[in-house]
Amino acid sequence: MGNRQKKYMRETRTVKTSYVFPPDTNHLGTLFGGKLMAYIDDTASIAAAKLARCTVVTASTDSVDFIAPIRVGNVVTVEAIVTWTGRTSMEVFVKVSAEDLKTEETSIAAISFLTFVALDENGKPTPVPEVVPETDEERWLNETAKQRAEQRLLRKKQSEEMARYFSNAML
Amino acid sequence: MGNRQKKYMRETRTVKTSYVFPPDTNHLGTLFGGKLMAYIDDTASIAAAKLARCTVVTASTDSVDFIAPIRVGNVVTVEAIVTWTGRTSMEVFVKVSAEDLKTEETSIAAISFLTFVALDENGKPTPVPEVVPETDEERWLNETAKQRAEQRLLRKKQSEEMARYFSNAML
Amino acid sequence: MGNRQKKYMRETRTVKTSYVFPPDTNHLGTLFGGKLMAYIDDTASIAAAKLARCTVVTASTDSVDFIAPIRVGNVVTVEAIVTWTGRTSMEVFVKVSAEDLKTEETSIAAISFLTFVALDENGKPTPVPEVVPETDEERWLNETAKQRAEQRLLRKKQSEEMARYFSNAML
Amino acid sequence: MGNRQKKYMRETRTVKTSYVFPPDTNHLGTLFGGKLMAYIDDTASIAAAKLARCTVVTASTDSVDFIAPIRVGNVVTVEAIVTWTGRTSMEVFVKVSAEDLKTEETSIAAISFLTFVALDENGKPTPVPEVVPETDEERWLNETAKQRAEQRLLRKKQSEEMARYFSNAML
Amino acid sequence: MGNRQKKYMRETRTVKTSYVFPPDTNHLGTLFGGKLMAYIDDTASIAAAKLARCTVVTASTDSVDFIAPIRVGNVVTVEAIVTWTGRTSMEVFVKVSAEDLKTEETSIAAISFLTFVALDENGKPTPVPEVVPETDEERWLNETAKQRAEQRLLRKKQSEEMARYFSNAML
Amino acid sequence: MGNRQKKYMRETRTVKTSYVFPPDTNHLGTLFGGKLMAYIDDTASIAAAKLARCTVVTASTDSVDFIAPIRVGNVVTVEAIVTWTGRTSMEVFVKVSAEDLKTEETSIAAISFLTFVALDENGKPTPVPEVVPETDEERWLNETAKQRAEQRLLRKKQSEEMARYFSNAML
Ligand SMILES: CC(C)(COP(=O)(O)OP(=O)(O)OC[C@H]1O[C@@H](n2cnc3c(N)ncnc32)[C@H](O)[C@@H]1OP(=O)(O)O)[C@@H](O)C(=O)NCCC(=O)NCCS
Ligand SMILES: CC(C)(COP(=O)(O)OP(=O)(O)OC[C@H]1O[C@@H](n2cnc3c(N)ncnc32)[C@H](O)[C@@H]1OP(=O)(O)O)[C@@H](O)C(=O)NCCC(=O)NCCS
Ligand SMILES: CC(C)(COP(=O)(O)OP(=O)(O)OC[C@H]1O[C@@H](n2cnc3c(N)ncnc32)[C@H](O)[C@@H]1OP(=O)(O)O)[C@@H](O)C(=O)NCCC(=O)NCCS
Ligand SMILES: CC(C)(COP(=O)(O)OP(=O)(O)OC[C@H]1O[C@@H](n2cnc3c(N)ncnc32)[C@H](O)[C@@H]1OP(=O)(O)O)[C@@H](O)C(=O)NCCC(=O)NCCS
Repeated sequence: MGNRQKKYMRETRTVKTSYVFPPDTNHLGTLFGGKLMAYIDDTASIAAAKLARCTVVTASTDSVDFIAPIRVGNVVTVEAIVTWTGRTSMEVFVKVSAEDLKTEETSIAAISFLTFVALDENGKPTPVPEVVPETDEERWLNETAKQRAEQRLLRKKQSEEMARYFSNAML
Repeated sequence: MGNRQKKYMRETRTVKTSYVFPPDTNHLGTLFGGKLMAYIDDTASIAAAKLARCTVVTASTDSVDFIAPIRVGNVVTVEAIVTWTGRTSMEVFVKVSAEDLKTEETSIAAISFLTFVALDENGKPTPVPEVVPETDEERWLNETAKQRAEQRLLRKKQSEEMARYFSNAML
Repeated sequence: MGNRQKKYMRETRTVKTSYVFPPDTNHLGTLFGGKLMAYIDDTASIAAAKLARCTVVTASTDSVDFIAPIRVGNVVTVEAIVTWTGRTSMEVFVKVSAEDLKTEETSIAAISFLTFVALDENGKPTPVPEVVPETDEERWLNETAKQRAEQRLLRKKQSEEMARYFSNAML
Repeated sequence: MGNRQKKYMRETRTVKTSYVFPPDTNHLGTLFGGKLMAYIDDTASIAAAKLARCTVVTASTDSVDFIAPIRVGNVVTVEAIVTWTGRTSMEVFVKVSAEDLKTEETSIAAISFLTFVALDENGKPTPVPEVVPETDEERWLNETAKQRAEQRLLRKKQSEEMARYFSNAML
Repeated sequence: MGNRQKKYMRETRTVKTSYVFPPDTNHLGTLFGGKLMAYIDDTASIAAAKLARCTVVTASTDSVDFIAPIRVGNVVTVEAIVTWTGRTSMEVFVKVSAEDLKTEETSIAAISFLTFVALDENGKPTPVPEVVPETDEERWLNETAKQRAEQRLLRKKQSEEMARYFSNAML
Repeated sequence: MGNRQKKYMRETRTVKTSYVFPPDTNHLGTLFGGKLMAYIDDTASIAAAKLARCTVVTASTDSVDFIAPIRVGNVVTVEAIVTWTGRTSMEVFVKVSAEDLKTEETSIAAISFLTFVALDENGKPTPVPEVVPETDEERWLNETAKQRAEQRLLRKKQSEEMARYFSNAML
C-alpha cells in the first residue's frame, strides 16, 4: 500500500500567530484581505504538506467571508487542519481568530476551506494518506467534506466555462 | 445627490502585470496560490477605490479555481473591473492570465469575484456611485451580478453560523 | 531570418498599477524615488522581455526628473513600451502617472527611457525582433530614438572613464 | 545664518554593503537593475540627510550605465557622498563596486549622480549647509558639479515638455 | 493592585509555523541565522505582549547556539512562553524545532531566552502581571529564571563598559 | 598550506548603514530587536565571508544587550570585523551605533559577538585563513577571543542538554 497509510487529522494541525503591523493595514488601521488570504494559503499548505510529504499546490479556495476587521496591534492566529482526502487532493479547514490585546477579547475573523493537490517530482498528481478524525468537530468536518468536494467539481465546470468566454473577450 | 453620481465600468479598469520570479514559486517552479490571491485582492481593491474614492475593505472573496499553473518566467496579468454596485458594496470581477514568453501562448489561470464595501472616516459603510456597462461582456457581468449578490448573503449566514460553532470548539 | 521577425510596438505595452502605501513613503507621506525607480525598471523589463522572449538586462537608465511627488493613497500607474531596437538592444519608454483618488486629478510624475540588452543562455547579447510604430506618438518616439542611442554610447564612454578614475581613488 | 553652517564632504560619506542573494537576480544569476537603483537611491538619500538633517526627496537621477553585471554571491558595496550644494539642493555621487569572493577581484559596476532637495515640515524646499572638499577627488567632484547642475535644469525643461505632450497622448 | 493580576504561563504560549523557502537560505540550502533570530524575536515578543498587554521591547537576547541546520523544505516551528516576570521585565523561553517532511524526523534547532520590558505610553518601564507555572517543565523554567536574571544584570554591566570603550575607538 | 594564508583584520571590515523606517518600528517608534538581530547577522556574515571566501553559517550568537532604543528617522550603522579564527570557525565583533539626525548625537545601541563556520561545497567545515590585528583595539579583541571561544564550548554543552530535555517535553 506504499505511501498510502493513514494519519490522524490532529497530526496535520498547523498554527501561525502573527502581530498585525501598520504596513499591513489600510488608512483605518485594519488588515488587508489579500494579506490575510496569503496567511491562510501559507498555513493551509503546511498542513497539507505535513500529510502529503511532497509538494502541494492550491487547487481552489472556497468563498471567504471576512466577518470582522482585524486591527493594528491585534494578534491574529491562523489554524489549519486537513479534514478530508480524495485520492490526490486534500481539503483543509482554516480558522482565523483575532485577539485584541487591550480588551483581551478574541473573535473569529474568517473561516475557509481550501483544496490542495499533492504532486510528484514530475508535477503529476500523486496519492496521499487518508486522515482519521477523532473528536466530534473533526468527524463533522470529515463527514460533510465529500459533499463540498462534489459541489466544487460542479463549480469548477462553470468557472472554466466562464474563463473560456472571457479569454477571447476584451475586458 | 452628492457623491452618488454614475461612472462607466471602463473607468474602474485596473491592470497589474508582473513577472513570476523564483522566490514566489514552489519546488516545481509554479506560483503559490496565496501569492496570486494577494495580487488579486490588491488589484481588485484599486478598481473598487477608483469608484468609491475612499477606503474600501474586502467583504468577501468568491471561490477561486486555479485552472492552470503559472510558471517561473511567465508574465502574469491581473485585470480588475467593478461590475455592479449595491448601496455601499461593489462586486469586482478579476481575470488572471499567464503568458509564456517562450511559446507566446496566453492562458487564463483564474477568474474571481470579490465584494468590497466602501467605508467613511469612522469605518461605517458609505454609499458608492453606480457603474454603467457599455459592452456586451460588461452588460452580462452587470446583469448577472444581482443574483450572485443574493447568494452571497445566504452563504454569509452559513459562514457566520459555522464560525460561531468553531469559535467555542477546539480545533 | 529566424527569431528576427517584426512586432508592433503596441504588443510590448505593459501596465502596472499600484496603490501607494505608507511604508513606501517618507515622513511627508511621499513615495521614495528608489521605490519608483524599481517599479520603472520592473515594468520596463517586462515590456522588453515581451519583445525579446529571453532574459533581458538593464544596460542603462537615462536621467529621470521626478516632476511631482506621489502621495500616500494615490494610485500610481507605470506604462512601458518598446520604442526602438538596435541589433541586441531595445529602448523602452516609461510614463509614470499618479491619480489622487479624492480629487480625481491625474498628473505625470516622471518619464524615463531605459535600454535593455537581450542575452542568450550563455549571457551573450542576442538579436531581437524589430518594433513597428503605428500611431503618431509611437512614430515620434521611434524616429527620435536613434539619436538618443548615439548620445548614450558617447555618454557611456565618459561614464566608463570616470569609473576607471574612481576605481583607484578612495572615496 | 542658523542651520546654514558648513560640513566636510567626508562627514556625509555613507556605505552600504550587501550580499547578492538569488531572489534579487534573473535567470542568469545577475542582479536586477531596479534593485541596484533602489540601493543607490537609499544610500544616497542617507548621505543627503546627514547633511540636511531633515526630510530629503530625490529631485532627479542622472543617467546610469550598468557597466558590468553583479553576480549572485558577490558582495556589492554602495558608497555615497554629497559633492555639492545649491541653496536647497544637493548633488550626491554614488560609486557601486562588486567583489567576487572567490577570485577576490573587485570591479566598478556603476557610478551615478543624484540630486536631492531638502524639505521643511510643510514640504517646502529649505536651505542646506555647504559642503567643503578636502582631497583631490573631492575637489574635482565639487568643482565640476556646478556645470552638471546647470545642464540638469535645461534637461528638466525638456523632460517637463515631453511629460506634457504624453500626458494627453494615449500610450 | 490594578493591572497586576496573575496569569498562567500557558496563556502566553505562542506558536509560529513556517515553511523554509529558498530565498531564506544560503547556497547550501540552510536557513540564515539572522532570519531565525527575527522569527524568534517576533514570536517571543507576541508571548510577552499577551502577558503585558502593552508595547514591549527586547531588553536582551541570551546566547543562541544553532544546534542543527534548518533546510529548505523543512517546516520550522517556533514556540514561545513567558517563564518569569520581574517588576517590569519578562523572561521568554523559545524552542525552535525543524521537521523534515520527507523523513518525518523532528529535531531541536535552537533554544533561546529573551528578556522583554513592558513600556507605557511615554516609553517608561511599567509593571507586568506575574506568571504562574503549572507543569513540571514550567516550574523548572520559572524557578531557574531568577538566577539567569541576576547573571544578565552582571553581564549588562560588562556589555555597557565595552560599548563605552568602543564608542570612542575606531573600528 | 593552500587556502590558509593570513589576512589583516581590517580587510574583513564591513559596514551597513540604514535609515530606520516606520514599518520596522513598534507603536513607540523604536526599532524591533529582531530586525536589528537580522541586520547584525547579515553584516557579520559578509565580514566572515570576506575572510573565508566560501559559504559561512552562523554557529552561535553571544548574548546581546539592547542598550538604547533606535528611533524612527535615526541612521543606524552596523560595523563588523573578524576578530579571531579557530581552524574552521571565526569570531566576528559587531558594533551598532545610532545617529539622531536632528541632534547630531551618536550613541552605541548594541555590541555583539557571533561565531561563523566556513563550509565547503559538501557542507563540511573547512579551514579559514588567520586574521592579523594591527591596532590596539584589534589586538585586544583578538587576544581576549580565545577565552570567549572556550566559554562558548561549555555553554554549548548546556544548551544541547537543555534542548534534549525540551525535545521530549511538551511546551
Ligand atoms: C464588510 C463589513 C464592513 C460589512 O459590515 P455589516 O455590518 O455587515 O454592514 P451592512 O450590513 O451595512 O452591509 C454593508 C454592505 O456589505 C454587504 N456585505 C456584507 N457582508 C458581505 C459579504 N460577506 N459578502 C458580500 N457582501 C457583503 C452587504 O450586503 C451590504 O451591501 P449594500 O450596502 O450594497 O446593500 C464588515 O463585515 C467588516 O468590517 N468585515 C471585515 C472587512 C475586512 O476587514 N476585510 C479584510 C479582512 S483581513
Ligand atoms: C549591457 C551589456 C550586456 C553590454 O555588453 P557589451 O560587451 O557592451 O556588448 P556590446 O558591445 O555587444 O553591446 C550590446 C548592445 O548593448 C548596447 N549597449 C551597451 N552598453 C550600453 C549602454 N550603457 N547604454 C545603452 N546601450 C548600451 C550596445 O549599443 C549594443 O547595442 P546593439 O546590439 O543594439 O547595437 C554589458 O555592459 C553588461 O552586462 N552590463 C551589465 C548589465 C546588468 O547586469 N544590469 C543590471 C546591473 S545591477
Ligand atoms: C524637487 C522639487 C521639490 C523641486 O520643487 P520646485 O518647485 O522645482 O522647487 P524650486 O524651483 O524652488 O527648486 C528647488 C531646488 O531644486 C532644484 N531642482 C528642481 N528640480 C530639479 C531637478 N529635476 N534636478 C535637479 N535639481 C532640481 C532647483 O534647482 C533648486 O535648487 P537650489 O535651491 O539648490 O537652487 C519638486 O519638483 C518635487 O517635489 N518633485 C518630486 C520629488 C519626489 O517626490 N521624488 C520622489 C518621486 S517618487
Ligand atoms: C530595556 C530598557 C527599557 C531598560 O531601561 P532601563 O533604564 O535600564 O530601566 P530599568 O533600570 O528600570 O530596568 C527595567 C527592567 O529591565 C531590566 N533590564 C534592563 N536591561 C536589561 C538587560 N540587558 N537584560 C535583561 N533585563 C534588563 C531590569 O532588570 C528591570 O527589570 P525589573 O523591572 O523586572 O526589575 C532600555 O535599556 C532600552 O530602552 N533598551 C532598548 C530596547 C530596545 O529598543 N530594543 C530593541 C533594540 S533594536
